Amino acid sequence: MSDQKKMVEEITSMEVDFAKWYTDVVKKAELVDYASTRGCMIIRPYGYAIWENIQKDLDARFKALGHENVMMPMFIPENLLQKEKDHVEGFAPEVAWVTHGGSEKLQERLCVRPTSETLFCEHYANIIQSYRDLPKLYNQWCSVVRWEKTTRPFLRTTEFLWQEGHTMHETAEEALAETEQMLNVYADFCEEVLAIPVVKGRKTDKEKFAGAEATYTIEAMMHDGKALQSGTSHYFGDGFARAFDIQFMDRENKLQYPHQTSWGMSTRIIGGIIMTHGDDNGLVLPPKVAPTQLIVIPIAAHKPGVTEKAQELCEQLKSVCRVKIDDSKQSPGWKFAEYEMKGVPLRLEIGPRDLENNCCVVVRRDNREKIVVSLDELNTVIPELLQKVHDGLYEKALKRRESMTYDAHTMEEMIDIAENKPGLVRAMWCGDLACEEAIKEKAGLTSRCMPFEQEHLDDVCPCCGKPAKTMVYWGKQY
Amino acid sequence: MSDQKKMVEEITSMEVDFAKWYTDVVKKAELVDYASTRGCMIIRPYGYAIWENIQKDLDARFKALGHENVMMPMFIPENLLQKEKDHVEGFAPEVAWVTHGGSEKLQERLCVRPTSETLFCEHYANIIQSYRDLPKLYNQWCSVVRWEKTTRPFLRTTEFLWQEGHTMHETAEEALAETEQMLNVYADFCEEVLAIPVVKGRKTDKEKFAGAEATYTIEAMMHDGKALQSGTSHYFGDGFARAFDIQFMDRENKLQYPHQTSWGMSTRIIGGIIMTHGDDNGLVLPPKVAPTQLIVIPIAAHKPGVTEKAQELCEQLKSVCRVKIDDSKQSPGWKFAEYEMKGVPLRLEIGPRDLENNCCVVVRRDNREKIVVSLDELNTVIPELLQKVHDGLYEKALKRRESMTYDAHTMEEMIDIAENKPGLVRAMWCGDLACEEAIKEKAGLTSRCMPFEQEHLDDVCPCCGKPAKTMVYWGKQY
Repeated sequence: MSDQKKMVEEITSMEVDFAKWYTDVVKKAELVDYASTRGCMIIRPYGYAIWENIQKDLDARFKALGHENVMMPMFIPENLLQKEKDHVEGFAPEVAWVTHGGSEKLQERLCVRPTSETLFCEHYANIIQSYRDLPKLYNQWCSVVRWEKTTRPFLRTTEFLWQEGHTMHETAEEALAETEQMLNVYADFCEEVLAIPVVKGRKTDKEKFAGAEATYTIEAMMHDGKALQSGTSHYFGDGFARAFDIQFMDRENKLQYPHQTSWGMSTRIIGGIIMTHGDDNGLVLPPKVAPTQLIVIPIAAHKPGVTEKAQELCEQLKSVCRVKIDDSKQSPGWKFAEYEMKGVPLRLEIGPRDLENNCCVVVRRDNREKIVVSLDELNTVIPELLQKVHDGLYEKALKRRESMTYDAHTMEEMIDIAENKPGLVRAMWCGDLACEEAIKEKAGLTSRCMPFEQEHLDDVCPCCGKPAKTMVYWGKQY
Repeated sequence: MSDQKKMVEEITSMEVDFAKWYTDVVKKAELVDYASTRGCMIIRPYGYAIWENIQKDLDARFKALGHENVMMPMFIPENLLQKEKDHVEGFAPEVAWVTHGGSEKLQERLCVRPTSETLFCEHYANIIQSYRDLPKLYNQWCSVVRWEKTTRPFLRTTEFLWQEGHTMHETAEEALAETEQMLNVYADFCEEVLAIPVVKGRKTDKEKFAGAEATYTIEAMMHDGKALQSGTSHYFGDGFARAFDIQFMDRENKLQYPHQTSWGMSTRIIGGIIMTHGDDNGLVLPPKVAPTQLIVIPIAAHKPGVTEKAQELCEQLKSVCRVKIDDSKQSPGWKFAEYEMKGVPLRLEIGPRDLENNCCVVVRRDNREKIVVSLDELNTVIPELLQKVHDGLYEKALKRRESMTYDAHTMEEMIDIAENKPGLVRAMWCGDLACEEAIKEKAGLTSRCMPFEQEHLDDVCPCCGKPAKTMVYWGKQY
C-alpha cells in the first residue's frame, strides 16, 4: 500500500448519508474497484476472500444433501430462452446479446445467461429417461449477467457471482420438499454463519420468479430499515418439463413429467453483510466468513521482545483461527483504525507491560470491549470470543429488526409508517393484486413475503376491507 | 441411471480410431454432454468433480506462494482490448461480441473475455502507485470464450474454465523469476498430482502468447504421440504497463513501469489426463484427482453378511480415501466394466469366501493386478496402493514418451519420422522463422518448445545448414 493511501480516510456517517456510507465502506475496505465495463465490478482480494468463505460453507451444505456441481455454458441460444413463455418475458428485457463471433455475424443470437433454467432443462431432457434417473440434484457456481439500469457494488450489478441449484424430482411433493429444504439451508447459513437474522416466507405472485409456481425467500433487514432479499428457492411444478419435453418412465411404466426446483444465493449477500453489521468505523465482519479473524498488533514494537512475542503468538494462534500480524512501521493508532475499517472481528494488542504480566489485550470489533487475556489461555479464549462476536452481531441485528418492524391495521397507518419510520410493516392482505399495487402506489411499499410464521392481526385487508387471507411483510427493498 | 443405459457399451478401440475413442470415453464415462450452444460443453458431475480436485490442489499451491484470488468482469470494452497492439491482433479474430443489452444497442461493443490481461492492467493502473504496492500477485478462476471453428470436449471449446494468474513486479528479474516459478508449479502439479510427465521449455516467437516477450510452456505427450500444451506462463516485460500507463514510484523516488507476468491452466488438462492414461476399457484416472479412488463391490451380495461387511469397509475406508460402494442389483461383471470405464483407480471385491478368510481382493485399474489384502491391513494398504497406481501411471507415460521421441539430424529424417512415427522429434534449429515455417510446411511439424534441458545434437540447423542455436521439440499438437 502506498504512503498516500496509508492515511485512514474518514468515511461518511450512516446517519448523514447511508448510500454514501455504503460506497465509502466497499471502496475503502478494498472490497471492490470499479471497472470501465458499465455496471460491472472488480471484486478485490479482500472481498473475494469473503466470497470464498461463503462458497466453502454453502458448497459443503449442498453436497451433504447429495447435490453435485456441474458447469453449463454461459450462452443461451435465443430459441432456447424462448421455450418457456413466462420465463422469457421476465428475463428477455434484461439480457446481454452476443451477435458476432470473431468476424462473422451469428445466425442466431446468444444471450449471456441471466439464469440457467433453460440450459439445465435441455440437458435434463437428454439424461432423464426413467424414475431411476431421479432425483437430479445439480448446482453450479458461476457468474450471470442482467442488464441493470442503475447499479451498486454487490447489491445490483450487471454481472454477479452466484450459485444456482437446479433439481428434478419424481413427484410434486418431493420437489416442494426440496424447495423448502434449500430455503432452510439459506436461512440456517445466514443465521449460523453470517449472523444475519432472516424472515422466511413466500413471495406473492407479483414478486415471484419468472416461470415459477412458487418462490420462497429469506428477507433480511438492513441498518436503514430496508429489506434485502437474500436467497430464493423456486418451485416450478412441471411447467418447464412440459416446455422442454422432459419425460420419464415412472414406477408403473407410464410416461410422466418430472417436477423441478431452482434456488440461488449471490454476491449480493456481501452487501447484506455490510449493511447489517457495518458501522461508522467501517466494515464489521461476521467471524465465520472474515478472511482475517484476528489481527495481532505489537505496541511499542521497538521494545525488546515485543515484536518477537507478537510473531510467536501469531504462529501459535494459526491452529485455532485465521490470524495475521501487522508489524509494519505504521503507528498502533493507524493500525487500529485500518483493521476496524476492514471489519476484523478481534484485535490483539501486546506491549512491554503485557509481556511482563504474561497477558495481552483483545478488543472486539463489534462493541469495542477490551478483554485482558492470559497468554496461557489464548488458544481457548480466542475461539470463544469469536463465537461471542458472532452471537453479539446476531442479537444486535435481531433486536434492530424487531424494533423496526411495525404492525399496521389501516391504510393510513401503513402510509404513516412508510413515511415516518424506516423498517418493515406487517399487515393483513386479501390476496388481490389490485391491493398489492395500491399499497405500492399509496405507501411506496412492496410485499417482501408472506411469512411462514403467520399471525392473525386483523380480519380484513387494510386496503380493500375484504376478508384477509394472509399476513404480509411490506417494506422498501434493495 | 435408466435400465437402457445400464448396459456398458463398447467403446471404439484406440488403435482403430483415436479421435473416436476419445469422444466415446468423454461421453460414456459421463464427463460431458453437448450443449446446443455451438462449440460449448456441459461438464457433468463426474467431470466437474475432477476439475474441483484440480482446482483445490492448484489453488493451494498458488496461495502458498502468496497469490490472492479476485474477480474481474467477463466483458472487455472494445477500446480496452485494443490498447496493446500485439494482444488485440492475436485475440480480436476469435472473440464473441456483445452488441445489445436488453433492447438497446450498445454505444461500444463488449467482447467476452478471451483472457484478462487488459482488465487486470486497467485495475493495476488504479491501485499501483508505489514500490510498496508491489508485487501484486493476483489470480482468478473463471471461464473464457474463444470463437473456435472446430471444437472437441476439453481440448478446444468455445468456452472453457481456467485460472489466470496476473502479477506485477518492481523489476524484470523478479517478474522473470515469477514466470519460471509458476511454470514449475504447473510442471510439479502435472507430475505429482496428474502423473503426467512434461517437458519444460520456451516457445519460439512464432508460438508465443500475443503481447508476451516470452512464453514458457509445459508439453505433454498423448497416447497417439501428439503433444498437448498443458500450461503456459508468460513474461510481458513492461509492454502492457506502458500501454496502460501503469507507473510506480520506486525506492529512489523515480517513476518506473512495473514488469508483468500471466500464467494459466485450463479444463484442457482433463483432455490431457484422458489421452495420457486412458485405455480401451475407458478412462484411467490418476488417484489424486479421481472423484472416487476406490469402489467397493460385494460379490454374491445375497449371501449372509456380505453386503453388511462391504458397507462397513466402505465406512471404515472413508478416513483414508474417497470411497464409494455399489451395492445395486447389477451383476459384479457389469460393475467391473462400469468402474473401469469411469477410471476408478482401485476396486475392492469382497465375497463369502473372503469373509471366511478375513480378506478381500483389490484390483488396480491401471494394470489389472489383483492383490489379496487382509481386512486388518486395509487402512494402510489402500493409500499405498493408490500411490503405486500414481507411480505406475507416471512411469508408463514417461516410458511411452521416451520411446516415442526421436532425434533428427536432417530434413529427410524429420520428414520420415513425421510421416512414419507418431511422436516428438528433437532437432537443432538456427532460430530463423523461415526454417520454422519450412519445417511446418515440409514435415507438418510445429515447434512445441525449446526445452530448458538442452542437448547439442548437431552443429547446424537441419533445415538451412546454418549454425544451430538451440534444440527444439517438434511435433503435431492438439
